[in-house]
Amino acid sequence: MLRTNLSMSLDGFTAGPDQSVEHPLGVGGTRVHEWAFPLAAFHRMLGRAGGVENASSRVMEEQFQGAGAVLMGRNMFGGQPGGWGDGAWRGWWGEDPPYHLPVFVVTHHPRAPLVMQGGTTFHFVTGGVEAALAQARAAAGTLDVHLSGGASLIRQCLAAGLIDQLDVSLAPVFLGRGERPFDVPAAAGLKLEQVRVIEAPGVTHLRYRVVR
Amino acid sequence: MLRTNLSMSLDGFTAGPDQSVEHPLGVGGTRVHEWAFPLAAFHRMLGRAGGVENASSRVMEEQFQGAGAVLMGRNMFGGQPGGWGDGAWRGWWGEDPPYHLPVFVVTHHPRAPLVMQGGTTFHFVTGGVEAALAQARAAAGTLDVHLSGGASLIRQCLAAGLIDQLDVSLAPVFLGRGERPFDVPAAAGLKLEQVRVIEAPGVTHLRYRVVR
Repeated sequence: MLRTNLSMSLDGFTAGPDQSVEHPLGVGGTRVHEWAFPLAAFHRMLGRAGGVENASSRVMEEQFQGAGAVLMGRNMFGGQPGGWGDGAWRGWWGEDPPYHLPVFVVTHHPRAPLVMQGGTTFHFVTGGVEAALAQARAAAGTLDVHLSGGASLIRQCLAAGLIDQLDVSLAPVFLGRGERPFDVPAAAGLKLEQVRVIEAPGVTHLRYRVVR
Repeated sequence: MLRTNLSMSLDGFTAGPDQSVEHPLGVGGTRVHEWAFPLAAFHRMLGRAGGVENASSRVMEEQFQGAGAVLMGRNMFGGQPGGWGDGAWRGWWGEDPPYHLPVFVVTHHPRAPLVMQGGTTFHFVTGGVEAALAQARAAAGTLDVHLSGGASLIRQCLAAGLIDQLDVSLAPVFLGRGERPFDVPAAAGLKLEQVRVIEAPGVTHLRYRVVR
């Protein structure tokens, strides 16, 4: 199945306005992720020691469990020509990205696969979302495909009815402006089932399945 | 304090598009309230027997507890000249509305108070939101003022920094289009604290306080 995790403000934004290389999550966008920063699981993801355990730990640890491939938009990778990066851009995550999986980046710009440390390889797919998803599903085999974002790719996948499970970490924050992953008129046709709620410090983790 | 309860879709709408006398909650808008319809508390509110008890019962019962007055927008009352009603309009709720409190309606159109059965009196206040809130606070005394909506009045109150507590019943529904109570750029300046989460069948009830 195709599933996604996203941190969202109470007013529906996953990133603030005016995204740039200085503000990859937009102005104020880090506020929707503040619940994660103290976690030991977050520190480990960045290769650091320390951090705390709380009800969010499990949510962060489960994020890539059972996933065999990742689907990602070009804005999230950040490497489009004329954009924040170019052919030399190697993503936001350093030489050992936290995916440890094949990552399929939906883009208009062909580029050879980029092999990183720790099992992450970025594949650049120019045939559209469904072609990239097909490649990700083939790579994942019986495992899930994890849709990592950004908001634009989530909107495309929702509009096309491709998403099977949504994990929403709802932060007690108003961003006021920014990127809405759920601004999708066609999504009104989807039937959702609420399957899990976890209350944690400074965030609520909600899981929904799309009922077919 | 000024507090509000609202049922919201996962994509941030409290009502669907194209509100009318046939669709007071907009097209599809009843879907965000579906969690409430089976409840005994909801049946009682309409003067009917029957219904079920579940984790949502308490939320519905608490809605007006501790409130001494209600603040309401003219769209929610529905009685603006040239709109859905006119001077003969007596609200959406029949002769015994579920408020049982003085209700202050923010409107541009003066009208004498409308005394209903069961303790509800609609007062029409033409001096703006803050004037209506002042009257509601005076009527409430030491009790709270309950902001009943609609979305437009919630936006105005958020933008003015007037709201102290938000209860959001988040429904596993996408409406696609409609009215967003939290589409308020100025709200980015508010600091929220998540104070309660209740998981219930087909809905999650979240409570936030505005930290001053």
